[in-house]
Amino acid sequence: MALTRIGLAGLAVMGQNLALNIAEKGFPISVYNRTTSKVDETVQRAKLEGNLPLYGFHDPASFVNSIQKPRVVIMLVKAGAPVDQTIATLAAHLEQGDCIVDGGNEWYENTERREKAMEERGLLYLGMGVSGGEEGARHGPSMMPGGSLEAYQYIEDILLKVSAQVPDSGPCVTYIGKGGSGNFVKMVLKSVGKLTNGELQQVFAEWNKGELLSFLVEITADIFSIKDDQGEGYLVDKVLDKTGMKGTGKWTVLSGLKDERVAASKIFQGDYSSGETVDKAQLIEDVRKALYASKICSYAQGMNIIKAKSTEKGWGLNLGELARIWKGGCIIRASFLDRIKKAYDRNGELANLLIDPEFAQEIMDRQAAWRRVVCLAINNGVSTPGMSASLAYFDSYRRDRLPANLVQAQRDYFGAHTYERVDMPGSFHTEWYKIANSKI
Amino acid sequence: MALTRIGLAGLAVMGQNLALNIAEKGFPISVYNRTTSKVDETVQRAKLEGNLPLYGFHDPASFVNSIQKPRVVIMLVKAGAPVDQTIATLAAHLEQGDCIVDGGNEWYENTERREKAMEERGLLYLGMGVSGGEEGARHGPSMMPGGSLEAYQYIEDILLKVSAQVPDSGPCVTYIGKGGSGNFVKMVLKSVGKLTNGELQQVFAEWNKGELLSFLVEITADIFSIKDDQGEGYLVDKVLDKTGMKGTGKWTVLSGLKDERVAASKIFQGDYSSGETVDKAQLIEDVRKALYASKICSYAQGMNIIKAKSTEKGWGLNLGELARIWKGGCIIRASFLDRIKKAYDRNGELANLLIDPEFAQEIMDRQAAWRRVVCLAINNGVSTPGMSASLAYFDSYRRDRLPANLVQAQRDYFGAHTYERVDMPGSFHTEWYKIANSKI
Repeated sequence: MALTRIGLAGLAVMGQNLALNIAEKGFPISVYNRTTSKVDETVQRAKLEGNLPLYGFHDPASFVNSIQKPRVVIMLVKAGAPVDQTIATLAAHLEQGDCIVDGGNEWYENTERREKAMEERGLLYLGMGVSGGEEGARHGPSMMPGGSLEAYQYIEDILLKVSAQVPDSGPCVTYIGKGGSGNFVKMVLKSVGKLTNGELQQVFAEWNKGELLSFLVEITADIFSIKDDQGEGYLVDKVLDKTGMKGTGKWTVLSGLKDERVAASKIFQGDYSSGETVDKAQLIEDVRKALYASKICSYAQGMNIIKAKSTEKGWGLNLGELARIWKGGCIIRASFLDRIKKAYDRNGELANLLIDPEFAQEIMDRQAAWRRVVCLAINNGVSTPGMSASLAYFDSYRRDRLPANLVQAQRDYFGAHTYERVDMPGSFHTEWYKIANSKI
Repeated sequence: MALTRIGLAGLAVMGQNLALNIAEKGFPISVYNRTTSKVDETVQRAKLEGNLPLYGFHDPASFVNSIQKPRVVIMLVKAGAPVDQTIATLAAHLEQGDCIVDGGNEWYENTERREKAMEERGLLYLGMGVSGGEEGARHGPSMMPGGSLEAYQYIEDILLKVSAQVPDSGPCVTYIGKGGSGNFVKMVLKSVGKLTNGELQQVFAEWNKGELLSFLVEITADIFSIKDDQGEGYLVDKVLDKTGMKGTGKWTVLSGLKDERVAASKIFQGDYSSGETVDKAQLIEDVRKALYASKICSYAQGMNIIKAKSTEKGWGLNLGELARIWKGGCIIRASFLDRIKKAYDRNGELANLLIDPEFAQEIMDRQAAWRRVVCLAINNGVSTPGMSASLAYFDSYRRDRLPANLVQAQRDYFGAHTYERVDMPGSFHTEWYKIANSKI
């Protein structure tokens, strides 16, 4: 048998789909999974989906030996210990110059640790965030490879074809940077973009024609149009409001605690209506503006977390290029990302998206509506965590003076941390306790 | 020379102070640091502070060999790679049954990884959160040891004497639980308890007589009383409002970005006064109530993060006992912690502090004031991130129904994640796209 171009280990749905995607683009691929039934299942799917050049192996040695040198193996296994196990299994058979690519959702520091360990054994390592879920993996994800540039260059031809293709923007993949930067960017990406309320399909459909045009607004409009096929009313109202228990962070998310919330609602019942009369058309327009302003803030925060880490680690990330590769594949795809790319094209050193002249003006135009919406919600006992947190971020960011002076004084009081002064250079320490208590 | 009872490696200020504290309590201690001048400095301090039984070593072998078996070494070095290095250095000389204690601020998963690695070499491991800063380390910290129970029991006599001593509550240390639980609890503790504004020493002094009685309120009152000795006015107003760049998370904290904020304040200037007239006494009273309600929510969230992780990992943590050991040493010490302990004593399985009957009533009594304060701030362009986030948490928690049904519908739309229904059991999937677009 001829050697294959690449290998993939870990055949849950994401892994199967990415392997099929690679094979479909014309790259012969070897696949392996510890539970061998998954191997057979993938081989079967490759047959059914058009005799794709995909080859299954039941043991790691023959899997690794079936790949042309230098060998590249993409892992798609659960983050943490399973990744370490898979690396140990593969590395036993890999040779100097071969490369392992972690396509899972790994904590970036683990990626950096493994990259160093692999380097000592003469192996290359990439941590590659893959966004777009199962559909994206099969038909075109957004891919964020970070780590060894040499390894990236060796598989760039594959990634350029396998990733989502967006007209005028190109393939949704770019070399992110050194170290764990690929996993870090994916991690921040996951926490960006929170939509709030809005109950009408027409509103969302209308919004999707304007500045809010995006995948999430579009599908939300669709969702609100669908009637329940098992009874009266709309289907969305029958969907249980309990989010999935998959993935990281699950245990701190209130939406998962349905039973607890029901109990609490009985304890804290009462009339939460503020009695204000609200013009419906005005409210919808206010919410649209508030949503847009919040969205700018969310992206500003996400981009700045990435920028700060890039500076700290010396990854040299290109923020405009990141906005570009998110335009396809992943769920945040939105016309808005073009505007972000343009802001960074205008000024690659932009300290914060908020102060880009275009975004700044848009926020100024919308802030009155934004404040009205958040207060209206508070006075009616409705929680808008995304919008109110974004507003707090904005109101902090545009303050030349914050109560952080008090925090600095407190830290100097209890920990002798010292402080700086607004009016003279140097580092100061005050015996706050002694002075305050000597006067009494 | 007789063997010492315990060793400590890593002699920055925290390490020096904890070593002196241990020696002062009558436990002969060996100390070691890679940069040997720190060793000499510590030995010198031990002499000056009363000829304390502290012995310095310049190389790891003689350091380890100076400790009685089974040996226990506390490390106080920077989290991450320095901990791995120190472990490697020490482990080369330790023997079966010896124990390493990490007293730094380590990510709990690293602690669990190391505990397993040590176990394979026959060594015991503890991850011990230490709270209270440099002062606490010297005179009595709050200590949160997790990991090997056997190791804890061996040094319990030392920890009971070295930790902060609180009348009626006892020493501020307890065995937290298995695995990385000690580091996890410390990590959550660090993020709890945010104070907001309030500009008068009298207000804080008054507040400190009531339900808000706590270390932070007390020192804040002191701080507001102190005049600037370098010029006119109060010292707190001369302190630069830029928080330190030490520790984790520094790069996402707005208070550090003084220069950026000054630039942004010019772009977003304008009149942010809402024009509402405010009764000053009423406002102070409202802020006091809002602060107390926010504080309950902050602790409820912190405790529940710990509880959920404990359940997931099987650590079996005792939440009331945690509240007890925070009463001394660490900066969150407050009379409020007694109330939390009592809530968990009443019901060890309490799902959330908010629904404890006493706390629930207190929140109900304060929520009107809380909503007034947050809206007033929003309408005046003032950021109250802590209070508004707590209010959003409360308003989400007391909702039997959240817009999470829409999120579930969206996830089923783009990722075929399936959803549950409110009216019948089972797992459902809908072809949202097909249905929505076939009707047009």
